[in-house]
Amino acid sequence: MLIVQKYGGTSVGDVDRIHHVAERVKAAAATGDQLVVVVSAMAGETDRLTGLAEAMSHNPSAREMDLLLSSGERVTIALLAMALTGAGVPAQAFTGRQVGIETSAVHTRARIERISGARLKKALSEGVVPVVAGFQGVNAHSDVTTLGRGGSDLTAVAVAAAIGADRCDIYTDVDGIYTADPRIVTSARKLERVAFEELRELASLGAKVLQTRSVLFAMRHGVPLQVLNSFNDRPGTLVTEEDVAMEQEAVSGVTYDRNQAKVTVADLPDHPGVASRLFETLSKADVLVDMIIQNVSREGATDISFTVPRGDLERVKAAVSAMELEGEPLQIEVDAEIAKISVVGVGMRSHSGVATRMFSTLAEREINIKMISTSEIKISCVIDDIYTELAIRSLHDAFALGATDGDTP
Amino acid sequence: MLIVQKYGGTSVGDVDRIHHVAERVKAAAATGDQLVVVVSAMAGETDRLTGLAEAMSHNPSAREMDLLLSSGERVTIALLAMALTGAGVPAQAFTGRQVGIETSAVHTRARIERISGARLKKALSEGVVPVVAGFQGVNAHSDVTTLGRGGSDLTAVAVAAAIGADRCDIYTDVDGIYTADPRIVTSARKLERVAFEELRELASLGAKVLQTRSVLFAMRHGVPLQVLNSFNDRPGTLVTEEDVAMEQEAVSGVTYDRNQAKVTVADLPDHPGVASRLFETLSKADVLVDMIIQNVSREGATDISFTVPRGDLERVKAAVSAMELEGEPLQIEVDAEIAKISVVGVGMRSHSGVATRMFSTLAEREINIKMISTSEIKISCVIDDIYTELAIRSLHDAFALGATDGDTP
Repeated sequence: MLIVQKYGGTSVGDVDRIHHVAERVKAAAATGDQLVVVVSAMAGETDRLTGLAEAMSHNPSAREMDLLLSSGERVTIALLAMALTGAGVPAQAFTGRQVGIETSAVHTRARIERISGARLKKALSEGVVPVVAGFQGVNAHSDVTTLGRGGSDLTAVAVAAAIGADRCDIYTDVDGIYTADPRIVTSARKLERVAFEELRELASLGAKVLQTRSVLFAMRHGVPLQVLNSFNDRPGTLVTEEDVAMEQEAVSGVTYDRNQAKVTVADLPDHPGVASRLFETLSKADVLVDMIIQNVSREGATDISFTVPRGDLERVKAAVSAMELEGEPLQIEVDAEIAKISVVGVGMRSHSGVATRMFSTLAEREINIKMISTSEIKISCVIDDIYTELAIRSLHDAFALGATDGDTP
Repeated sequence: MLIVQKYGGTSVGDVDRIHHVAERVKAAAATGDQLVVVVSAMAGETDRLTGLAEAMSHNPSAREMDLLLSSGERVTIALLAMALTGAGVPAQAFTGRQVGIETSAVHTRARIERISGARLKKALSEGVVPVVAGFQGVNAHSDVTTLGRGGSDLTAVAVAAAIGADRCDIYTDVDGIYTADPRIVTSARKLERVAFEELRELASLGAKVLQTRSVLFAMRHGVPLQVLNSFNDRPGTLVTEEDVAMEQEAVSGVTYDRNQAKVTVADLPDHPGVASRLFETLSKADVLVDMIIQNVSREGATDISFTVPRGDLERVKAAVSAMELEGEPLQIEVDAEIAKISVVGVGMRSHSGVATRMFSTLAEREINIKMISTSEIKISCVIDDIYTELAIRSLHDAFALGATDGDTP
């Protein structure tokens, strides 16, 4: 089999850990698999470089920032290739440019447009393990670009697609994807399999194992993913197209996001175009609005509530304060002490009653639901942040997601 | 004027020093000069990276070593470009690859073969100060190469030649080229001007201000060099073609090299081919032989003495021990406690008596001369290491090189 392995910053965080990764790669190569390894910068390195940049300028140019940050992965690929070769596994380091990762022009969050993969295939045909720098590519100006948060996962998935790999293994510091955060729910169970669409919801909803873009890319190109722990040998979670077996389970997991805030704009005139002006203003201020609720109109006025990342709150306040509607400034109320709790599962499509059970479970605990949003495979409720743990544990029990004998986390 | 400035690792050793360099570049740009800046890795960074490589493998591959080390300059160029832009001087960082520095294929000590310079000229025409990574290039396989010790000076000189710069300013932590090491000779005087050929001898003989390769390159391409101190505003030393004024001074400086060892192979059969076999063996062992003396033959046997870098001694011993001549192993004696003292000056060509004065000065101090070698513009003597300081001071006095009024170091 042809396998792409990806190791994150914690897995290559120091000299000993890089040797440990080399041993893992060696063991995998010994089974006869062909391997490509993608790595991130050593843990802490990106922060160190960002700190240096901030000491240079309050507003460092994005082009130079990318060049600076990309040096982190260059160090790791060189070191891992040395460790592998030293351990008797012929290996060569390749930068994003060298494996032909062509991206859009925009710096600090470029999109991958093309991967030639020619050098990778040549190295593989020569029995060499290519060690590839994650997170980076090169744009049409021949400048180094970076792919933004979680970019190394994206590199791994894109490389796997480009060379037609049988699987992309993402090594992290957790054993796989769980039915809930094991720090909150002690009976949380590791999922053997999860559908791309579920993982996408689980990832974007705060189960930060894999970045949403990578899951989307893998789904679109049909690259099977596996999430494993680089610090042990336990089987991980396989992420694939959904199949019939998955639909037997109504719900795969309960997840949460505590990084949201709720904003209410009160007494808006209830006529067409008001909501669109509000959200256009927020969009121009680069605010990512998530859930939106518009209350029913009363006496010609309406309230609109929405959630935004907490870090965007100041921008929201500034943007909304600067708006005027019919000569009146807008009134806004902010509630930062909220959490979004979601249940996710492809099986929801064929099972009714998931929403009912979710609402009744929360009601039994007297947890007030402030907002609701639903999609085909998930239901999300905004609640007071203080009830987060209670809500997750109660929902995990209510949907019988807990560990069964012989499969403890 | 179009000027290339080069700052070494000490000059960009920390955040404050990078800001200081940015201020210097800003001041130079304010005079109306067009500038290109070449920088090394921050002091200490290369050692840190080398240490990591050694922790990976006892024998790290040269290709990966180059990729690893080249990350050091990438960090500096990004940071300096940020600092410059922050200080109101538009600047962009360029890697060796981006300015088109094409080198030979060999890693860790590649030769520069071509510089396109197209991107540099474009940036200059747009009023941008290009900040270029020293020490690195790219070979025909599209792999990163490094230029070996002092490679950043070479980058600066080669860039200056490629863009037809009026001058290449090398910023260091000394004020310029001195008549002798100021740590040994308190009356040492900074030279206002020195000829390429003199500097080449001074550099290769241990006055480690500029690397020999850079001086050769500048000489061959007629790039005027200036050596200055990045920590003050004193005038430096200008390095140019020799002119008539220079010939008035018989000797420009006294220099030394304490990093040599003397090896004597005794009782060699005195017939043709013996010496050539010996030095062929040493050459195959990658030993750089400097001075060679063959004693007159006595009773069909001869002694050959030569000097080598002290670090090569173990390789010399191994190579010579493995040789056999007529079934007999060779006898070698090693003297590591030596120094090579040289007087240098283009004026020697037209002044006689320099050798006589050198030998008699040493004789007056009862310093025994163990080996002698001469060229058109220098005379070198090997002496016991313990007499190094005494010999340098005495020669500096004897050739009246000391500081005169108003020109103290």
